Amino acid sequence: MSVAYSFNPAAEVAAEPSIEGIVNLVRADMDRVNALILSRTGSQVTMIPEVAQHLISSGGKRLRPMLTVATGTLAGYEGEGAVKLAASVEFMHTATLLHDDVVDDSEMRRGKLAARMLWGNEASVLVGDFLLGQAFRMMIEVGNMRALDILSNAAVVIAEGEVAQLAAAKNIATDEEAYLAVIRGKTAELFAAACEVGPVLAGRAPAEQAACRDYGMNLGIAFQLVDDVLDYGGSKAALGKNVGDDFREGKITLPIVLAVRSADEEERGFWRRCLEEGEIGEGDLERALALLTRHGALTETIERARAYGAAAKQALEVFPDSPAKAALIDVVDFCIARIR
Amino acid sequence: MSVAYSFNPAAEVAAEPSIEGIVNLVRADMDRVNALILSRTGSQVTMIPEVAQHLISSGGKRLRPMLTVATGTLAGYEGEGAVKLAASVEFMHTATLLHDDVVDDSEMRRGKLAARMLWGNEASVLVGDFLLGQAFRMMIEVGNMRALDILSNAAVVIAEGEVAQLAAAKNIATDEEAYLAVIRGKTAELFAAACEVGPVLAGRAPAEQAACRDYGMNLGIAFQLVDDVLDYGGSKAALGKNVGDDFREGKITLPIVLAVRSADEEERGFWRRCLEEGEIGEGDLERALALLTRHGALTETIERARAYGAAAKQALEVFPDSPAKAALIDVVDFCIARIR
Repeated sequence: MSVAYSFNPAAEVAAEPSIEGIVNLVRADMDRVNALILSRTGSQVTMIPEVAQHLISSGGKRLRPMLTVATGTLAGYEGEGAVKLAASVEFMHTATLLHDDVVDDSEMRRGKLAARMLWGNEASVLVGDFLLGQAFRMMIEVGNMRALDILSNAAVVIAEGEVAQLAAAKNIATDEEAYLAVIRGKTAELFAAACEVGPVLAGRAPAEQAACRDYGMNLGIAFQLVDDVLDYGGSKAALGKNVGDDFREGKITLPIVLAVRSADEEERGFWRRCLEEGEIGEGDLERALALLTRHGALTETIERARAYGAAAKQALEVFPDSPAKAALIDVVDFCIARIR
Repeated sequence: MSVAYSFNPAAEVAAEPSIEGIVNLVRADMDRVNALILSRTGSQVTMIPEVAQHLISSGGKRLRPMLTVATGTLAGYEGEGAVKLAASVEFMHTATLLHDDVVDDSEMRRGKLAARMLWGNEASVLVGDFLLGQAFRMMIEVGNMRALDILSNAAVVIAEGEVAQLAAAKNIATDEEAYLAVIRGKTAELFAAACEVGPVLAGRAPAEQAACRDYGMNLGIAFQLVDDVLDYGGSKAALGKNVGDDFREGKITLPIVLAVRSADEEERGFWRRCLEEGEIGEGDLERALALLTRHGALTETIERARAYGAAAKQALEVFPDSPAKAALIDVVDFCIARIR
């Protein structure tokens, strides 16, 4: 099945946004983050590093830990703590992915078979628990109580967001507010926490901590909105999973919320059958895409992503210009540009 | 199917051991622990308290949090921290149970349907994550770095033990050492950590912290050995799940390790078929019980449990006699007496 949709006519595009800026900025510290990640997935129980490494070495961008290191640099932090907190953030993220794949019955992740397809749901659940425990150990080693508070609170909020998503799944009455509450929890909170701990470690003023948190929260929302759009039109290679997975799982994402809002009775029946009753047949994904396009739901979602991206950039205005600030601004453009 | 086996002839039995001693000792603090547990399972996401309360209010004995409060009392602690750490310990335990039920495909827990049977595996995984996050938040609120270290380490060790159990499952070549490594991790570590943080909060000498940890570790091993025996002969009501669940899941527990060690070639074939290949038919559980009895595997396991129980009691000898010490000693007898 091939679904092709051009979200962004070439005419609109200027220079290609990239994450080279942040990659170069944090390179030395990220080498240490990666070494720490490798050593902390070690265990005498050999199944643990096998499962953990399968996912961790599968070519994720490590965006979240890069944000922790970069916001630390932005805030003038020069200690050892950012590397450990960055590794903690990546472990929290990896644990969430392992558990998500079980929850969603996913077969693929980052273009490879999901760990649960190779080692079973059991191993995915338990290795996720191991990584979450290791994340907390590393945070505790850093010993900054405020950072501990932020990251442990994030762990709770992420789980709440995931459960809220479960409760909203297969319910086309989900409105935009409920949807936003879900993605603030399941996705944006970790971006926010990852960015907030940078200035916290540096002991910067509350306003600057809040600014970095705002940056991360808005970036995280934009990132998730772009993901939601890509699920209806990215290439399998760029997506690392199959186009239409959200549709098949009955996930109510913003494009769906917007299309249902504009739907007539017949269309509403279509969405109900596919998303609530899970009766999806030949041609239904194409029909869904046609309806999303007709009602401008994908374009509108992209507009929202751009607005959140602009808010993320604006949050950084309290900081003077610096290479770190420029790199963090480029990250926003990169995340949104994934749509092309 | 009815399996009846009397482990302990009435003639051997003196007074009925009970946990009345510890229950009375910690009553006031446990009221506060229970209130805290109730308030910290709250969430705007209504599915979370539903799932959490289903398990938490299902009549568990709250043994682990009682141990934290009681070892705090033993050590002369009078602050607020023990109540929060006790609630953390119970949340860690509850999270483990929710995830275990998913891993084991269990249908029952504490005599009720397992949460995953009512809300699905998804909710059990995610609500477990929520509770683990809340456990860490409460620990962090207490702010004792050494206690944080002990409990976060326990979270990692528990997950390692669970994965090790998974790796050993369906493998009758598992030896006693490997089995003990599994239960030290999956069960005894949380008992040990729950007991160690009491004197840690009180700022007692390392030898006393170590004594409480030893007490908990040995008690936890004894507790698990008794559980393993009960799985082959307890009543369904006392067990809260079905007799023979371990057998049907291919779990290699100490009774099996001991029976396989004494098995002839034909018996080894039986264990291989039932536990490794999972081909279990009518009469096989009865045959397993007959073999366990013939080789004295259940009796020997009970003997080991008693020896670990004795070691637990001995660990407390560094403390002068007190109501708390007497109550902790009674707990050991109570855990072992569950066999009758």
